[in-house]
Amino acid sequence: MVEPSLVLYGALYERALDLLEDTLRETGARYALLIDRKGFVLAHKEALWAPKPPPLDSLATLVAGNAAATQALAKLLGEVRFQEVVHQGERMGLYVDEAGEHALLVLVFDEDAPLGKVKLYGKRAAKGLAGIAQEALAHPPKLTLDTEYREGANALLDELFGN
Amino acid sequence: MVEPSLVLYGALYERALDLLEDTLRETGARYALLIDRKGFVLAHKEALWAPKPPPLDSLATLVAGNAAATQALAKLLGEVRFQEVVHQGERMGLYVDEAGEHALLVLVFDEDAPLGKVKLYGKRAAKGLAGIAQEALAHPPKLTLDTEYREGANALLDELFGN
Repeated sequence: MVEPSLVLYGALYERALDLLEDTLRETGARYALLIDRKGFVLAHKEALWAPKPPPLDSLATLVAGNAAATQALAKLLGEVRFQEVVHQGERMGLYVDEAGEHALLVLVFDEDAPLGKVKLYGKRAAKGLAGIAQEALAHPPKLTLDTEYREGANALLDELFGN
Repeated sequence: MVEPSLVLYGALYERALDLLEDTLRETGARYALLIDRKGFVLAHKEALWAPKPPPLDSLATLVAGNAAATQALAKLLGEVRFQEVVHQGERMGLYVDEAGEHALLVLVFDEDAPLGKVKLYGKRAAKGLAGIAQEALAHPPKLTLDTEYREGANALLDELFGN
């Protein structure tokens, strides 16, 4: 089974949310997501005024897949990969920027959000999120069962199967 | 066998080349290509000062494939497709814009070409090229053998097989 390359929790997760929220306010974008390169949503925020977003898991999967697919193109131009990609439709736009090696920042914006601001604050947020992702990788969550539970379970197993 | 959706020849081809050359001069980009959505190169120009380009057929195939792949993403945001995509690497960038329904303008630029100019003149060129592609579709090349050849061939066949 595919698992996320990193997990945000506790204080790191809160910091990522704050950063995404600040970025929404500064850029005027609708939705902000931090995803990993496999397509998992690590954190996301929606602007209060924004309509219901598209399915964010699907969005993350497609963005991550697309980012991976452009690597062949980047290599043809002598680059390892593209750091930043902007897709512009009639009304909606999509800004994708690297947040370190394993994560991507995704901003979905409409025609009211100035692209200059999206790129400026997007780039800044991506740097901050890269730091957060780095910390999360350095200190992965440990799944520890507490002593009481462990002792209780051991006693139960001893009773069941004999010691 | 896959065939190009349109073919540029004669005066239309020359006009496309002129437009690509103007765009290279105005934007400071290295290479300019007009490709169709299947990935065929219809016309291309390289800046005189630019180093040897990457294999343009491969570039066209990857750009067209990528443009098709992003349609799912566009649909998720309520768009039919993205009109404009900018990929930005450490040094090299790629600007892709729709030139009508069947063709794409591709500009490859390095860090010395200001993105604003690339987008401004790129967009203008894409409009011009869309017109050229439209004309080419309206008047596809006809492969006609001239009367003299046809009569000669008929006479020869009559002689060979009897009339």
